[in-house]
Amino acid sequence: MHFSSKLIEDAVNAFASLPGIGKKTALRLVLHLLKQNTEAVEGFGKAIVAMRKDIKFCSHCHNISDHDVCAICSNKARDHETLCVVESLRDIMAIENTGQFRGLYHLLGGVISPLEGVGPDDLNIETLLGRVDKTGVKEVIMALSPTIEGDTTVFYLNKKLVPLGVKISTLARGISFGGELEYADELTLARSIAARVPYEK
Amino acid sequence: MHFSSKLIEDAVNAFASLPGIGKKTALRLVLHLLKQNTEAVEGFGKAIVAMRKDIKFCSHCHNISDHDVCAICSNKARDHETLCVVESLRDIMAIENTGQFRGLYHLLGGVISPLEGVGPDDLNIETLLGRVDKTGVKEVIMALSPTIEGDTTVFYLNKKLVPLGVKISTLARGISFGGELEYADELTLARSIAARVPYEK
Repeated sequence: MHFSSKLIEDAVNAFASLPGIGKKTALRLVLHLLKQNTEAVEGFGKAIVAMRKDIKFCSHCHNISDHDVCAICSNKARDHETLCVVESLRDIMAIENTGQFRGLYHLLGGVISPLEGVGPDDLNIETLLGRVDKTGVKEVIMALSPTIEGDTTVFYLNKKLVPLGVKISTLARGISFGGELEYADELTLARSIAARVPYEK
Repeated sequence: MHFSSKLIEDAVNAFASLPGIGKKTALRLVLHLLKQNTEAVEGFGKAIVAMRKDIKFCSHCHNISDHDVCAICSNKARDHETLCVVESLRDIMAIENTGQFRGLYHLLGGVISPLEGVGPDDLNIETLLGRVDKTGVKEVIMALSPTIEGDTTVFYLNKKLVPLGVKISTLARGISFGGELEYADELTLARSIAARVPYEK
């Protein structure tokens, strides 16, 4: 693409470096910003740089936070006896969006994956054991992806947590709400039959 | 959406204010930037703010430029006797991408549109007449959109330019290369028959 301006070219390349944004979309965004006033564009730039520079990670659960302890961990109204172990930030957001979970989280930062060179020491497991041991946690919910790596991690964590005398549970698996039965995969369908529950009126 | 961090929320809202980017995409971009190092994100922010703050408009053709005179107008190798009148920046880029035009441009900044309150005085017409009058321009190519507003603008410019004794031309109109005849609109097809050209071997 031809740009008569190096400034424009740099800005387009900056946007185009983001995932899912090509040169044409980047140019559209740059031309949009060019029409905004300078203060608005400075605000845009500042919000993004501040986000990266000032972001902290909660010393309890490793979630991103504006302070040393995140808004969830420091919320007295939440159930501090239940920990939900998740893989990433997006999982916390997804669960928070349901509005159904009132406990705290613990962000592992990944799952055990020997193929990708991720071992237990690369994850936030020590701090999880410390929290369970010292802060009176009664239940740990394993909310990891239903993959081989996820299951391996749950297996490993289970072995470490059992001696601490804490209740361990995993997410219920079965067919989705609103999903059509014929499109459910065999494994999920088989499991949802095996783990059938009494009908509730 | 639930964000445990105001910083993240601000950054997501900044991205989501861009056209075609929703909250989910914005979050994906923010989480991507969160994984980059601080310098890279600062570079991103700076490129965008600098673009808006330092951008100039060419004093000859009104194109965006890093200097007082843009790279096209200051290029001695180009044909300074031919001016291509366009509506917007994107049109200049589109024509430059063809690599077929070696003359200079003149950016009107819009077209005459009484419905939207855009009159001749709101466009860069005075400077166009000045350039044609004083810099030895021999031909003006009208490359405006084939709309009522575009045609009105061409009509108006033609009236102003004829007394200056300059050759005036418009873009050829007809069916597209690679386009299927049956999908061409009636007006274009009718015109391309009326304006048929001798077959060249």
